[in-house]
Amino acid sequence: MIKKSTQFRNMLNSDQVEFLMEAHDGISARIVEEAGFSGIWGSGLCISAAMGVRDNNEASWTQVLEVLEFMSDATSIPILLDADTGYGNFNNVRRLVRKLEQRNIAAMCLEDKLFPKTNSFIRGEQQPLADIQEFCGKIAAAKDTQKDPDFSVVARVEALIAGRGLEEAVRRAEAYFEAGADAILMHSKKADANEVLAFMGEWGDTCPVVIVPTTYYSTPTQEFADAGVSMAVWGNHLMRASITAMQETAARVIKEQSVAGIEGEIASVKDIFRLQNADELAEAEKKYLPAYHDVKS
Amino acid sequence: MIKKSTQFRNMLNSDQVEFLMEAHDGISARIVEEAGFSGIWGSGLCISAAMGVRDNNEASWTQVLEVLEFMSDATSIPILLDADTGYGNFNNVRRLVRKLEQRNIAAMCLEDKLFPKTNSFIRGEQQPLADIQEFCGKIAAAKDTQKDPDFSVVARVEALIAGRGLEEAVRRAEAYFEAGADAILMHSKKADANEVLAFMGEWGDTCPVVIVPTTYYSTPTQEFADAGVSMAVWGNHLMRASITAMQETAARVIKEQSVAGIEGEIASVKDIFRLQNADELAEAEKKYLPAYHDVKS
Amino acid sequence: MIKKSTQFRNMLNSDQVEFLMEAHDGISARIVEEAGFSGIWGSGLCISAAMGVRDNNEASWTQVLEVLEFMSDATSIPILLDADTGYGNFNNVRRLVRKLEQRNIAAMCLEDKLFPKTNSFIRGEQQPLADIQEFCGKIAAAKDTQKDPDFSVVARVEALIAGRGLEEAVRRAEAYFEAGADAILMHSKKADANEVLAFMGEWGDTCPVVIVPTTYYSTPTQEFADAGVSMAVWGNHLMRASITAMQETAARVIKEQSVAGIEGEIASVKDIFRLQNADELAEAEKKYLPAYHDVKS
Amino acid sequence: MIKKSTQFRNMLNSDQVEFLMEAHDGISARIVEEAGFSGIWGSGLCISAAMGVRDNNEASWTQVLEVLEFMSDATSIPILLDADTGYGNFNNVRRLVRKLEQRNIAAMCLEDKLFPKTNSFIRGEQQPLADIQEFCGKIAAAKDTQKDPDFSVVARVEALIAGRGLEEAVRRAEAYFEAGADAILMHSKKADANEVLAFMGEWGDTCPVVIVPTTYYSTPTQEFADAGVSMAVWGNHLMRASITAMQETAARVIKEQSVAGIEGEIASVKDIFRLQNADELAEAEKKYLPAYHDVKS
Repeated sequence: MIKKSTQFRNMLNSDQVEFLMEAHDGISARIVEEAGFSGIWGSGLCISAAMGVRDNNEASWTQVLEVLEFMSDATSIPILLDADTGYGNFNNVRRLVRKLEQRNIAAMCLEDKLFPKTNSFIRGEQQPLADIQEFCGKIAAAKDTQKDPDFSVVARVEALIAGRGLEEAVRRAEAYFEAGADAILMHSKKADANEVLAFMGEWGDTCPVVIVPTTYYSTPTQEFADAGVSMAVWGNHLMRASITAMQETAARVIKEQSVAGIEGEIASVKDIFRLQNADELAEAEKKYLPAYHDVKS
Repeated sequence: MIKKSTQFRNMLNSDQVEFLMEAHDGISARIVEEAGFSGIWGSGLCISAAMGVRDNNEASWTQVLEVLEFMSDATSIPILLDADTGYGNFNNVRRLVRKLEQRNIAAMCLEDKLFPKTNSFIRGEQQPLADIQEFCGKIAAAKDTQKDPDFSVVARVEALIAGRGLEEAVRRAEAYFEAGADAILMHSKKADANEVLAFMGEWGDTCPVVIVPTTYYSTPTQEFADAGVSMAVWGNHLMRASITAMQETAARVIKEQSVAGIEGEIASVKDIFRLQNADELAEAEKKYLPAYHDVKS
Repeated sequence: MIKKSTQFRNMLNSDQVEFLMEAHDGISARIVEEAGFSGIWGSGLCISAAMGVRDNNEASWTQVLEVLEFMSDATSIPILLDADTGYGNFNNVRRLVRKLEQRNIAAMCLEDKLFPKTNSFIRGEQQPLADIQEFCGKIAAAKDTQKDPDFSVVARVEALIAGRGLEEAVRRAEAYFEAGADAILMHSKKADANEVLAFMGEWGDTCPVVIVPTTYYSTPTQEFADAGVSMAVWGNHLMRASITAMQETAARVIKEQSVAGIEGEIASVKDIFRLQNADELAEAEKKYLPAYHDVKS
Repeated sequence: MIKKSTQFRNMLNSDQVEFLMEAHDGISARIVEEAGFSGIWGSGLCISAAMGVRDNNEASWTQVLEVLEFMSDATSIPILLDADTGYGNFNNVRRLVRKLEQRNIAAMCLEDKLFPKTNSFIRGEQQPLADIQEFCGKIAAAKDTQKDPDFSVVARVEALIAGRGLEEAVRRAEAYFEAGADAILMHSKKADANEVLAFMGEWGDTCPVVIVPTTYYSTPTQEFADAGVSMAVWGNHLMRASITAMQETAARVIKEQSVAGIEGEIASVKDIFRLQNADELAEAEKKYLPAYHDVKS
């Protein structure tokens, strides 16, 4: 059994584009693993959305951590946490790293914005960026704190989102890499991949690069591979699929005043039990609670 | 604005069958409300499933409470919490009632089984039932503890699930009603509604009755109305719809190595923002953070 | 039974100096009430110290909230929470107010520093202050959010701590009062009360003033009364008393390899039970669990 | 650096009586370590008392776990958690073991009573004991679950507390040892050590024995050593010392309307900072936040 942090590091360093799929709770994480993905994106947007709060650090960092713990317990593939700004300064980051390692989270991504954050797809160009030196201090503090040498810190550059241009993006990426980042996540909200590919042209193979093609999804994956991208993150798609399914189901049940019509189209209760691993408990009861049936029933 | 507890009580006492739809986190709760339902079932099965744990009290009661708080904060319709056995004895129930009232949860349902519980659809007939007297103590303790007179305690009878027969079901329902229960939830896992309808025949209008037609979903709703049922719970359908949607989406993205194909079929990122009420924050920033754009960008 | 928030407001508006004593967990809060104090200071320093972490927002705001909830549940007198900077921006403050009201916390104090905070007694003069306009936005947001009209927001001015002088202190106090603050907490870390008294001379009775005479403890209380101070906070004294007692007890037990010597000098186990209100449970068991002794023993 | 679990195991197997001192939060745990103790008793009674709730599983097991995590983070010596009944059945115990190992808790003690528990010093003789076979299932499940071979499970026998006599105590101890317990905690609430010493006479060196001489504190420690006891737990003494100190301090401040009189008798604010390890942060700021003083002040 390869450690989750090592699995993630191997993905970063493999010579093909690796994919992470978003999850936001234990069951979506398990579904990501079952589908065959090699890793999970612990999306800040989707975790907050699942809670019903906004992607502005309305939930506390320990509330997010608890969701992560359930996700990690439910799966055997690595999770890259979208850790926003690290929820404060370098000292909060140090504490976060210790807590993530205890929960067996393989890696975290820090973004160079200010706490409390705003989602990058909302007024991104108006959002202030972190001071480079201070952000480098966060990265260095994280790297000095981790006990597992394979825990990864991904530095997320918001310069393109903020409309600061390629030069600033490269300058920041270089500084973060020198501060110890294991990979750079170059974010963009353009409808095409041009600015990300331009960055790749400048960056070469200085260190692994992660992208989040939420808006430039129509770019063929092969273009990312050709440009040398290490990892692509499908950042919110299970949440979005689940919203649509729940909305349609709820609307139909309201209309039909019955669930008979949808019964054949949705997972069975047994599917829920299977995803919860109910059988393992039934087996364990035979071993650890042998008199249960006789004594209690 | 009618209090949530009063809304729930009005539903119990209305002269038509009212429907609760299951939710398991903040966003599913909001979707239930948006779809037009008048109330939410805080399903123990689905809340635990969302976490990736089993419906056997693997999550602590305060972890469940935190999910409930997010659900309640995200909605304005009442929540009936599926509170299992009350997570212990009468004293744990007293504490639970105080915490639920603080979080604006309208009602809770206690079931007459033993802690830690097992889901009723797993070996139900072999599961032991609570001692009647002790269970009545729980109900009385809950009713004596609540401060809001409209908070409701629903007593869930598992006698039919456990194969104890109609007479035992009626005997228990009567005892629980006398102990103070505001309504009886008569559970059944038959493929038809016969045993529930038989109960209704015996019970008449002693007090409101709630049913959970998960297995006997094909019974027309009108039959429940004719029998005098007050409330029907669609106990796990949004979770099941969401599982199927996430499984299909994940499988397709794996296969196509792209999200381009699903982009048009799932909710947009803006839909997520809308469900999170992002606009309200943007408005509030103008009021409370007026210099934000000038100072920071 | 007067609401806690009303009790606190009455204290602010009374014509004598009222005293709050620090507490940091449920039992210290109960001891404060038993001793006869009319209110509790939920000290950020001492709550973090009890946890074993630093007063730099190392604990998340929900971890602090949980301690507050235990403190509030254990007492019937009002708590003024030392809420640091509000744990983020105006939006975090809005969320905090809702959560505090749910937990029956009477009032909160916001300080005009930056998140994550550093304790005022550590390099206070080097600590940056909040932008006045932004801080006023926090106060206004808090006041607009509260549902209970008696919930109080105390604005803590750090200008004297930061060495910015009396004029700046008054300027900030005025701005905060105009933004809606119910009271001003004027902090100082001088060994005498001169600068606080100078402020009182300028301020008059514009609105109630709270002080924390941790360093200028030798000033007779009558001087505060004469100057028109509304409330004095004993900010950390139970924590400090408890540290000394635990250190001395631990050292002695180590030395004597026995607890026989200290047995007569420390509270009895029965005292713990009494502070936990164990008798109430014993009574309740007779009512709600009548068969307990017969059935179970 | 020896692992905490190994430290604890070494204590169990040493040829002298080892002592654990009670702690109930981060700061008391740190004080225990600073005083020179080799291990910490995470007391269920005192942790619940600190919260202001009763020792009847009123706090959830995850709330207790969070306190344990703070205690473990603040110290480098092992913690033996007083885990009550394991907070449910064997399955809850399995989950608990995983969570304790993640938080670096060295060992846990399970008692053979029923959930929710009542403190052994309250109506102990009337409290029901667990079924032996079921309790052995819990022990076996815990041992099969732990990943760290040095994590220890201590089985606490309540037979003497319950007045069941020596024979029952030995019978249970043997069964628990055979089920995998690493040590037996033989509890007694007599004023003398006779029944515990009688047990030691029967038990010999079958496996290590832990005692809690709360009531028979006057027995000289040498008698425990001579009888072959491995470990003695001072189960609640820091909490008791701290209660007395806080009560006396609060009473005096009320009376004197000033803290001037107590100032010299209690720890200084700097002592709090030292126990919080504030200096480490000041050093780290120089390294990771170099521009802080220039930029911000």
